[in-house]
Amino acid sequence: MPKVSQEHLDARRRQILDGARRVFSRHGFEGATIAKLEEETGLSRGAIFNYFPTKWEIFYALAQEDQQRAGELWLDDGFSAVLRWVVEQEPEWIGVYLETHRMLRTNPELRARWEQRNPELDNRLRAKVEQQQRGGELRRDVDADTIGRFMGLIVDGLVLNVSAGAAYELEDLLKLVIGGIAPQ
Amino acid sequence: MPKVSQEHLDARRRQILDGARRVFSRHGFEGATIAKLEEETGLSRGAIFNYFPTKWEIFYALAQEDQQRAGELWLDDGFSAVLRWVVEQEPEWIGVYLETHRMLRTNPELRARWEQRNPELDNRLRAKVEQQQRGGELRRDVDADTIGRFMGLIVDGLVLNVSAGAAYELEDLLKLVIGGIAPQ
Repeated sequence: MPKVSQEHLDARRRQILDGARRVFSRHGFEGATIAKLEEETGLSRGAIFNYFPTKWEIFYALAQEDQQRAGELWLDDGFSAVLRWVVEQEPEWIGVYLETHRMLRTNPELRARWEQRNPELDNRLRAKVEQQQRGGELRRDVDADTIGRFMGLIVDGLVLNVSAGAAYELEDLLKLVIGGIAPQ
Repeated sequence: MPKVSQEHLDARRRQILDGARRVFSRHGFEGATIAKLEEETGLSRGAIFNYFPTKWEIFYALAQEDQQRAGELWLDDGFSAVLRWVVEQEPEWIGVYLETHRMLRTNPELRARWEQRNPELDNRLRAKVEQQQRGGELRRDVDADTIGRFMGLIVDGLVLNVSAGAAYELEDLLKLVIGGIAPQ
């Protein structure tokens, strides 16, 4: 059996994820057939399922990447940068998330894993919020997780609007979001 | 042709809407076939389409009713009451809204009508927000529409979470929402 470099494995994985993202956006989660994934990635189903045992695993990996990107934007450039990033996403791609919500609701195991898709990032974000609370930049009368949930709610609200094709003027809305989390 | 009383027409309309709501919740928008609507309402397709020319019109009427209920809760009992009402909704019913978002995005005429599904209520809500701004209960550095959009964003965020089966502890979150709209 020939030895395959890590670099090669990573490139192949990237090729699958990039192709799958296009297929999901274009056809939705249900509509993303194996044949379409093969066509768009240029790989056989055997090769694809060597990396990801199910279609769900491919989507899950893409959602992990999105979450990582949003979390790093928050850590590096602040929460406003996350919201700007959300409104720039393709509505078609965001629609795939909405499509998978029914699965999450009706499958507790899937849901539990979904909520834990990036615990290390969650810890870094919590530490940052707590640091800003100590520094007087964020209110201290609620815990860091509540602030995180509030931010998540704003992101989810935007997601829903973007998926329905709404245009968004963020600047004034940001004032209200900031008002909610500022020291009172 | 026999004369039909307004009372009879209203009762028949109610019968269709109640049955359709159950069918949509159970089978989704796409899955709500005419046969299922006939079975659940106990009426023929001819009778149903006499009141609503398309399946979309039935859903639209139900969404108008939801919006009316939420708006009146806001006017009578405050915004917190709206959020409590949202988290009590059946996830299956909320899922129908998510399913229709793709249609809204890809059909501008549908979308324009959707946004105007209750202009009279919108005016009453705007008047209430402006009155609370003048009375010093709400911040005045943004216009009433921005406050309305922020509230809508919070509702939409909750909607998305409820549809994914998330449980919600509202009390602490409400503090942040109120912080966002209070005079700064």
